[in-house]
Amino acid sequence: MQRYFAKEKINNIFILGKDDLYHITKVMRMKDNDNIEVVYQKKLYLCSLENVTKDIKINIVKELEIELNNNLDITLIIPLLKENKMDLILQKATELGVNKIIPVMMERSIIKLDEEKELKRIERWNRICKEASEQCKRIDIPIVTNVLMLSDLENLEGIKIVCSTSEKRNNIRNCLKKNKMCDKINVVIGPEGGLSKKEEEMLKHLGFESVSLGPRILRVETVPLFILSILNYEYME
Amino acid sequence: MQRYFAKEKINNIFILGKDDLYHITKVMRMKDNDNIEVVYQKKLYLCSLENVTKDIKINIVKELEIELNNNLDITLIIPLLKENKMDLILQKATELGVNKIIPVMMERSIIKLDEEKELKRIERWNRICKEASEQCKRIDIPIVTNVLMLSDLENLEGIKIVCSTSEKRNNIRNCLKKNKMCDKINVVIGPEGGLSKKEEEMLKHLGFESVSLGPRILRVETVPLFILSILNYEYME
Repeated sequence: MQRYFAKEKINNIFILGKDDLYHITKVMRMKDNDNIEVVYQKKLYLCSLENVTKDIKINIVKELEIELNNNLDITLIIPLLKENKMDLILQKATELGVNKIIPVMMERSIIKLDEEKELKRIERWNRICKEASEQCKRIDIPIVTNVLMLSDLENLEGIKIVCSTSEKRNNIRNCLKKNKMCDKINVVIGPEGGLSKKEEEMLKHLGFESVSLGPRILRVETVPLFILSILNYEYME
Repeated sequence: MQRYFAKEKINNIFILGKDDLYHITKVMRMKDNDNIEVVYQKKLYLCSLENVTKDIKINIVKELEIELNNNLDITLIIPLLKENKMDLILQKATELGVNKIIPVMMERSIIKLDEEKELKRIERWNRICKEASEQCKRIDIPIVTNVLMLSDLENLEGIKIVCSTSEKRNNIRNCLKKNKMCDKINVVIGPEGGLSKKEEEMLKHLGFESVSLGPRILRVETVPLFILSILNYEYME
């Protein structure tokens, strides 16, 4: 069943965004009495449509039970990348359970954004995460923050790791085995060409542990999917 | 350094394919005495270019040492999918160490291929794997076989698993922990809409163990990346 995130709830009726209403009426061509699932404040509802052609109403039929995933809270810290790579990461990372994505301007990022462009991009990135969340039936939507600098990453809670191609001894497997009981993890991924020495040192200073991902050479956009797959696996019950 | 796979070796000279020569001369615009890496019969060589503008010669300078990955031999068995999904899987699976990919016509595959189209596609798929192997510095190229039927999967060696959304008890983590010592693994991934009951039974009959991938709902094209990431992780040294 199609799933949407509601913006508001007024008594027994949900208010959806314009894009979602367009999707329901024009893309899915739903009719009166068709059912959809609606998520609101991390609860899931079965709803039925009324008056689809004119002034659509989304009525709650009942609350549904939710199958909970693991409770690991994952923040990905990624470089600014070309749009198609960024889109792929956001979509797949949402599927694979990321909670927050922090885009960071790194020394070797090729992409630069002015303020106006940045606002538009962030809006677009959050929309991609919302749509991916609907598609993969999440009850929450990952947050994409403003573009930050590495030096802004001072007050993160939980384990902090940075994927480094220059790290030869400590691999991610050792690191996660050592931190079996964590409930919050932050992972920095470098740009094509890697983090600069200065950046690696700054991260070390901020408490990030350097890990290798094994002997393979992965493209930047593959790394987040690799990491998230591993985290899903390691914390699978 | 740019890496290419040679077709032939005659004395101290490598013969590359037309596409590769085009890449060297037109895309990379290399010059005489520039170096490239060439892989031939799973060995790696440092080579230097001679006579680039006219009748290019690729001379061996010396053999290079290879950093070996783990020895797990992985075969992915995937449904026929739309081209962009297929391309993504082939590229990323190559990066993540797949050895063989068997495309299979499944009941709920949307894509149908006639014989002529199939030949062209297989050529294209193998080309994608070759290019991805060069990019991620592999010394071998995954093989994409002809399109098969599930019933053709009779004589596979090693562990056999099928990712199933209907499996609730046995997850992939349990399965891999149980098979720690394996050196060959075959993984079937179903199409959008899943495998049919008949297909699940046929696979069971052929010795495939049914596993769940946890509570997340993943898109078909995400599943191979998820599986391969996990295998890399589980067998990381």
